[in-house]
Amino acid sequence: MTYCLAIKVNGGLVFASDSRTNAGVDYISTYSKMHVFGTPGERLIVLITSGNLATSQAVVNAIQRDLDDPSAPQNLNTFHYLFDAAHYVGHLSQRMQAEHGPVLKENGVSVEASFILGGQIRGRDPNIYMIYPQGNYITASPETPYLQIGETKYGKPILDRIVRPDTSIEDAARCALVSIDSTMRANISVGPPVELAIYPHDKLSLDQRLRFDYNTPFFSNLQKSWNKGLRRAFDELPRFDWEPPGA
Amino acid sequence: MTYCLAIKVNGGLVFASDSRTNAGVDYISTYSKMHVFGTPGERLIVLITSGNLATSQAVVNAIQRDLDDPSAPQNLNTFHYLFDAAHYVGHLSQRMQAEHGPVLKENGVSVEASFILGGQIRGRDPNIYMIYPQGNYITASPETPYLQIGETKYGKPILDRIVRPDTSIEDAARCALVSIDSTMRANISVGPPVELAIYPHDKLSLDQRLRFDYNTPFFSNLQKSWNKGLRRAFDELPRFDWEPPGA
Repeated sequence: MTYCLAIKVNGGLVFASDSRTNAGVDYISTYSKMHVFGTPGERLIVLITSGNLATSQAVVNAIQRDLDDPSAPQNLNTFHYLFDAAHYVGHLSQRMQAEHGPVLKENGVSVEASFILGGQIRGRDPNIYMIYPQGNYITASPETPYLQIGETKYGKPILDRIVRPDTSIEDAARCALVSIDSTMRANISVGPPVELAIYPHDKLSLDQRLRFDYNTPFFSNLQKSWNKGLRRAFDELPRFDWEPPGA
Repeated sequence: MTYCLAIKVNGGLVFASDSRTNAGVDYISTYSKMHVFGTPGERLIVLITSGNLATSQAVVNAIQRDLDDPSAPQNLNTFHYLFDAAHYVGHLSQRMQAEHGPVLKENGVSVEASFILGGQIRGRDPNIYMIYPQGNYITASPETPYLQIGETKYGKPILDRIVRPDTSIEDAARCALVSIDSTMRANISVGPPVELAIYPHDKLSLDQRLRFDYNTPFFSNLQKSWNKGLRRAFDELPRFDWEPPGA
């Protein structure tokens, strides 16, 4: 499994992903699930992936081949709208799944993959899209300013409580890290390193791409601080009426 | 869907359940999922249910009929061990599922139900068991002193962080409420009223059985306090190195 998410706030976009992949419990490995494309000053596109690793890699390879091939009818640098890029990735995903799906299905393995694609094309607003395994896609909304793929449930409550469109981009990034930390604690199929990309509105390039292991000081301090803060919040909850007030 | 959980700490047991049931999104109703059995001073058994409502109700009805029928070969008052009671409930569940399962399956509906059974029989230790839809069952452990059924993922991180065997029974109860609150916020298929039963070790009867709606003062204060505490914990997280320290 995997856990990846993207957040869209007024100040820009945040992308975060874990790096664990597994085929059963006896083949666990580490792969980056965050891929960055674009031309500085013109467009920035981040793609994060979840699901079958071969499908995800094949899609990323096909994207790169189209970018390298001057005769390709379209590539991530030719689209005028981000949703066209999402459509293109959904189409590639369907193509890869169609090729290997039937054989894998016979072996009881899912060929499905999900993607989050986001970024900004010059002259347009930044946005994020989640691309389903079936190739269709949705965007975020002011009421739900985030998208998740993979093992999404453990890390959802904190996003619902904290993230609003006017949340600062750094707070959105911290919230993404807390959301991934909670998920890693609850589910062994989600693991470090955690990758984080912070894209400020209209920047058109990616300045902040960070990578955290458990022992990276910033991430380790964030985990300790969150644990301590949660513990204090818990200790300050109201007492039942039969408990002594100072209990 | 549903979310129910039980916690076993040194001081006793805690049971908590939501009350929402749904058949699709256009038939949502409210049912208690917490059932209490036993003889004060001799034994106390709490059963909480998740899954197909007809199966859950049929199991509870069968338990009650066996208790009322002097000729029944066994009932919840005759077992010397709690795990025998868990085995009995698993057997009843299998019997009910076998009767209605095939027809429901043809209609694409699952007949499955899960249960948590816990309590204490005089002279033995209190314990909790989770009974799978297949009728087999597991207990908790010092490392994982809780069991969950239904929509379990949203509310798991806070349990993992807070609950240990030496957690007080009131703290375990508060943690159960926070876990259910997080789940209700994240998933519309889990809803109030929330039922809470607190069973102190060796009490052999249930003194504290509470029921909370959103506007019950204790629950509403707990929600507000938790939200405020989480917000403060979040606001105190470390800043990124490019942020001004007071940001």
